[in-house]
Amino acid sequence: MSLKPSISKGTKDYLPNDLGKRNYLKKILRETFETFGFVPIETPSFERIETLTGKYGENGDRLIFKILNSGDKLKKADIKSFVDKDLGKFSNSLSEKALRYDLTVPLARFVSQHRNEINFPFRRYQMQNVWRADRPQRGRFQEFLQCDVDILGNRSILQEVEIILMCEYIFSKLNLKNISVNINHRKILEGIAILIGAKDKFSLLTSSLDKLEKIGKNGVIKDLKTHGFIKKSIDSLIPFLEIKGDFKSKIDFLSTKLKEIEVANQGLIELSSIHDKITKHKLSSVEVNFDITLARGLDYYTGLILEVLPAEDEFGFGSIAGGGRYDNLTDFFGLKETSGFGISFGFDRICLVLEQLKLFPKDLLKSSKVMFVNFDDHIAQDCLQIIISLRKKGVSCEIYPTKSKLKKQLDYANQREIPFVVMIGPDEYLKKEFIIKNMKTGSQSVFKTKNLIDEVMKLI
Amino acid sequence: MSLKPSISKGTKDYLPNDLGKRNYLKKILRETFETFGFVPIETPSFERIETLTGKYGENGDRLIFKILNSGDKLKKADIKSFVDKDLGKFSNSLSEKALRYDLTVPLARFVSQHRNEINFPFRRYQMQNVWRADRPQRGRFQEFLQCDVDILGNRSILQEVEIILMCEYIFSKLNLKNISVNINHRKILEGIAILIGAKDKFSLLTSSLDKLEKIGKNGVIKDLKTHGFIKKSIDSLIPFLEIKGDFKSKIDFLSTKLKEIEVANQGLIELSSIHDKITKHKLSSVEVNFDITLARGLDYYTGLILEVLPAEDEFGFGSIAGGGRYDNLTDFFGLKETSGFGISFGFDRICLVLEQLKLFPKDLLKSSKVMFVNFDDHIAQDCLQIIISLRKKGVSCEIYPTKSKLKKQLDYANQREIPFVVMIGPDEYLKKEFIIKNMKTGSQSVFKTKNLIDEVMKLI
Repeated sequence: MSLKPSISKGTKDYLPNDLGKRNYLKKILRETFETFGFVPIETPSFERIETLTGKYGENGDRLIFKILNSGDKLKKADIKSFVDKDLGKFSNSLSEKALRYDLTVPLARFVSQHRNEINFPFRRYQMQNVWRADRPQRGRFQEFLQCDVDILGNRSILQEVEIILMCEYIFSKLNLKNISVNINHRKILEGIAILIGAKDKFSLLTSSLDKLEKIGKNGVIKDLKTHGFIKKSIDSLIPFLEIKGDFKSKIDFLSTKLKEIEVANQGLIELSSIHDKITKHKLSSVEVNFDITLARGLDYYTGLILEVLPAEDEFGFGSIAGGGRYDNLTDFFGLKETSGFGISFGFDRICLVLEQLKLFPKDLLKSSKVMFVNFDDHIAQDCLQIIISLRKKGVSCEIYPTKSKLKKQLDYANQREIPFVVMIGPDEYLKKEFIIKNMKTGSQSVFKTKNLIDEVMKLI
Repeated sequence: MSLKPSISKGTKDYLPNDLGKRNYLKKILRETFETFGFVPIETPSFERIETLTGKYGENGDRLIFKILNSGDKLKKADIKSFVDKDLGKFSNSLSEKALRYDLTVPLARFVSQHRNEINFPFRRYQMQNVWRADRPQRGRFQEFLQCDVDILGNRSILQEVEIILMCEYIFSKLNLKNISVNINHRKILEGIAILIGAKDKFSLLTSSLDKLEKIGKNGVIKDLKTHGFIKKSIDSLIPFLEIKGDFKSKIDFLSTKLKEIEVANQGLIELSSIHDKITKHKLSSVEVNFDITLARGLDYYTGLILEVLPAEDEFGFGSIAGGGRYDNLTDFFGLKETSGFGISFGFDRICLVLEQLKLFPKDLLKSSKVMFVNFDDHIAQDCLQIIISLRKKGVSCEIYPTKSKLKKQLDYANQREIPFVVMIGPDEYLKKEFIIKNMKTGSQSVFKTKNLIDEVMKLI
């Protein structure tokens, strides 16, 4: 019995035309990263479980795909924990490795492991898939490509500035206008947590705030209640959720509200300073905004955080890039004082935006420029010799594999959008001639076979 | 407590210089595939388990990495099968999807699923990772990149010829000489199975033969005994294992031995015909050999099979590419009569061979061409403005992120192999000048800042 062909939910096949587009975007990103002095690394798709867990917050950890132990290792299954309904423990007994959840934690592991082979500050880029056991929805897949740039080993805010300038550079190249780069600072959020008397619940606060866009203000309030935030805390949080105005007036409001809290002041000064430096440069695609409700619900951020959004409300699938400063991430792996700052571009979402706005150039798929019609085995053999020479000159070409009806062969060339067809039928073969047909105009010309390569090169 | 940073066994980190080389090889492969008229597709990293299992033979199925169910699905764990020591069944109750084992089965699934969106004969290439729970060893990782080309929907042997010509094209581009393309035909092996009275054990026979290189003739004999082959069968197999001579004499020997067996004759005729067509073309990097012990232990092959090996004994990690004809693979997914032929290039092994033979060109890693020294925050801000302009002109450049000691900054540029350094110290800043230092020769020149971009463009 045959199986209905289908893929696992939340995953996606890419057809040739999709990849023409994706490879175009990949090329722009890669060239940008290299122009900014970043070098590539790649890490394995799966890591030891202990490398990944405990860095993404509770929500993140739950979404990590684990790989089932095989062979004898499966005998270590902890059946008792299954019976006790401790599925977390049961699951841990069945698996020793897991698929990458992001590229940042693997980077911290990589930098710690290879600290003697790399130069600090380490400017690296990485374009690889990540996997999340998220509920699939529009623009959100279980497997997706992330394109990350990070600088590790230096605390200078020039890096924050550089990365935001990189956003301007990329989105200008892509002709994508009205991009918001929303920024906030974890130290300001920390200050708020202290002010509202919820310092010990900081991680819960950020992961609730992170859901603001999805669940709204009332959703966040409900979420905080569930997590044991007292009414007084929540009430004092509300003015922060409702803050309005331009950059400066927000800073002023917060400076007043948080003036007694040292950590918040640090954050406010740094945030203002980064904003000042950026606005010295002329930005045409990107606008930098201060969003106090931006939280980035990942445990590892400690400084500036940012999120990049396409023009307001147009697409409804959230950010197309995000990142932040993390001071202590490599500490997990025994490498101290290696602060990093980085951004992750959500490749698939940027594709969706470019698609929707029709910003992909045409004819991005590279394919055969010439097809040779197959009239008989003997002539085909000679055609193959010519094809070998054309390919050596870099011309993409092919021969139809069987001597099917001419119409069928030409239809195939048409469907594949192959612009020229070479025909050497038995008559032409005897006369040492060939016909070249322009598939767009339908016009045909006859030439001597000895000039075939030159004639084709003229057309391409 | 900090964790010793390490990766899962059988996986590998790639450092920037590695990726310079890998991206070079990727580019040559991609350009070749496109020159031969192939278009790209990509499929998800994990597929539904039923898509993958039952296509690779017993050995293959065991090596598939499964993904552990998460959340409530884990409750479906079949504890009884664990207690009954049926680990296979237990494992199946814990998982619904699995990582790609190769690119061929996902291709068959893809082609069946998207049959109405693609044009047949479908010439596709695919460059993606695959995963195998193999014991790690030299040149054999649990995660590796495969680069596949296949043509589906046509039975013409021109495809076999084209793919072997592609090997010649690629290995010539890579300056890799003395490459053996070993070919055999599954129908000849089928004929041998019939002759030795083991028709019903064909799959076991091919998977034993497949191990010949690893375990030797005696190992294969032992393996066959274990799998219940009778002595008479094994004895009549031995002359085939010991066959010697050139292409023609092997064909003659087999034609005599197998003349009563129709299927074998079909195989012999096809194999000879393919060999004839190839040898009409001048091959400089590749030699085609007939290896009757070549089996390709994957269940899905039905016609010509091939394996590509670097010059004899030099590396000891086996084939660097392999492939074959499969007539019925899409049948599994309800698409009939869609014969395919393809080859898979083992990217990592080709890298190892190129590395060993020092065939990678130098300076493959693209990185900054100019570094600006950081003297103070104010000047750095002006430098950044110049850097923005240089980058717009495509010059890779960066500024050192902090005003560290000059020596430290120059050491960094040296280690990163950045060829030019621009210095605008407080004196130069006042005089509107800059110094450019050639890091190779140590020579320095002074120019006016207004000419900076032109002067840099001259050097790059």
